[in-house]
Amino acid sequence: LRLHILGANSAIPTSDRFSSCQCLDIDGNISMIDCGEGAQINLTKYKIKRSKINQIFISHLHGDHIYGLPGLLSSLSLSERTHPLQVYGPAGIEGFLKSVMKYSYLVPRFAIEIIQLPEGHNETVYENQKFAVDCFPLIHRVPTFGYKFRTKQLRPKLDKDVISKYHLSVDQIKSALEGFDLISEDGTVIKNSKITIPKGKGKSYAYCSDTIYHEGLCTHVNEVDVLYHEATYMHDMKVQAAERFHSTTIQASTIAKDAKVKQLIIGHFSSRYKNLEPLLLESRSVFTNTELAEQGRLFEF
Amino acid sequence: LRLHILGANSAIPTSDRFSSCQCLDIDGNISMIDCGEGAQINLTKYKIKRSKINQIFISHLHGDHIYGLPGLLSSLSLSERTHPLQVYGPAGIEGFLKSVMKYSYLVPRFAIEIIQLPEGHNETVYENQKFAVDCFPLIHRVPTFGYKFRTKQLRPKLDKDVISKYHLSVDQIKSALEGFDLISEDGTVIKNSKITIPKGKGKSYAYCSDTIYHEGLCTHVNEVDVLYHEATYMHDMKVQAAERFHSTTIQASTIAKDAKVKQLIIGHFSSRYKNLEPLLLESRSVFTNTELAEQGRLFEF
Repeated sequence: LRLHILGANSAIPTSDRFSSCQCLDIDGNISMIDCGEGAQINLTKYKIKRSKINQIFISHLHGDHIYGLPGLLSSLSLSERTHPLQVYGPAGIEGFLKSVMKYSYLVPRFAIEIIQLPEGHNETVYENQKFAVDCFPLIHRVPTFGYKFRTKQLRPKLDKDVISKYHLSVDQIKSALEGFDLISEDGTVIKNSKITIPKGKGKSYAYCSDTIYHEGLCTHVNEVDVLYHEATYMHDMKVQAAERFHSTTIQASTIAKDAKVKQLIIGHFSSRYKNLEPLLLESRSVFTNTELAEQGRLFEF
Repeated sequence: LRLHILGANSAIPTSDRFSSCQCLDIDGNISMIDCGEGAQINLTKYKIKRSKINQIFISHLHGDHIYGLPGLLSSLSLSERTHPLQVYGPAGIEGFLKSVMKYSYLVPRFAIEIIQLPEGHNETVYENQKFAVDCFPLIHRVPTFGYKFRTKQLRPKLDKDVISKYHLSVDQIKSALEGFDLISEDGTVIKNSKITIPKGKGKSYAYCSDTIYHEGLCTHVNEVDVLYHEATYMHDMKVQAAERFHSTTIQASTIAKDAKVKQLIIGHFSSRYKNLEPLLLESRSVFTNTELAEQGRLFEF
């Protein structure tokens, strides 16, 4: 998994800190997560191929998470895309997109499938052969979802050299991939472990923005490899954070610790913080393996 | 007048060439002209005060001219603006803004007055003590307007030193500002020209984007000080330009020459041109005093 951070500012963006937007590349398929203003600009800047985006997952309908969608759809259309795009989000995402497209004369040449998730929905919303995406409710001022991406266990592989060494038939290859031992031409048993490259364990990534601190979140993000959790404020502003249904650094890292995740990425920074280092240090005081969702940064796991 | 270029790319923006947006500062009042995606980001980048924007003039409803409006309204609201904002544009601008605000839960704390201009409108649409704005129709695929800003003749001024030197009374000052000569304490005549700084001639700026080449435009922009005219393409693409209702460099500079303007600024460049210098040279072959609408550039006149 390759996670590109295209923006992680809250409220008013600046030229080097755009609003929330991420691209998760799973084996060449890109899922975009939130789409703040300027998303299409940063796709070009960071050389991410627009054409590989097949799903967009929107957490909620505040402007700093969706105002980049119209421009992105427009540039996808100008790029002569023809393959369909899926957009997941809370109720209202369809009305938003259809209104914008109507008034701005935007008629994409590709199909846009809009999937509106019922408030409080807690289900697997997308699944293909390589990964699945679960949505779960966050607690914010408006209906908001977190998303968890789970890659599936990789199937075992056969090495080409093994196939030619043992002169394996198609049936034998199938049998080996299903986990069986084989009998070689001279009658000896070839242990499955000798000819296959074992299954890879699936990875998981959870995205939680925007949300007030609530312990119940741990069940949804339990033991994920990487957790993105908003940390709009330093902890001295915990009262204001709660009033605005946002979280602090300490709260984000407490969720990471309690949910036993491997790595935490904090983001959705208030524009009041010119320097993000204090937010990182404060978060690391509770959960050491914390990183900042700095624009342009790439996380591989 | 101070004209800030915040963006002048057509279609797909890049990180240093955003979509169409300009700010025209007339004596501290800023009129924004078009508002492509990322306008609010460039306001911050180029240190232009959001709070001084009182009018926004939208040429037409294609995305690259309006997709920055939602984010700008959102940031104006977060900045605790209370004074009203006027938005001028073709029919549909009201539906666009109201839909976006509804779906994204945006409730500005200031009044937004939306003025929809009837198709083909050719009138003065805004006027205050310092300047007036006329709209006129352009010819594009959708209803589109050009705008002409005319500053009024500046009233004569009195120098403070003159007032104290001649011990002028309030009545005498008023009389002098109306153009009369004065009688000094010792009975001699003081010529009006000796005590007043004369009237300044008004300036004019016309904005024309997007439009097919048409000679009729000259009557609307006749003898303006500065003309912005789109030049989406080099002239070897004049057939495609016409098909798409856009203009070429040569066409923009022909309008400038025929309308006897003082200076031409070309913009709305196709993203196919990585280097804009050839467009400038081609335009200058017809109209020497041509400049490029490069992002971040400031024109003072």
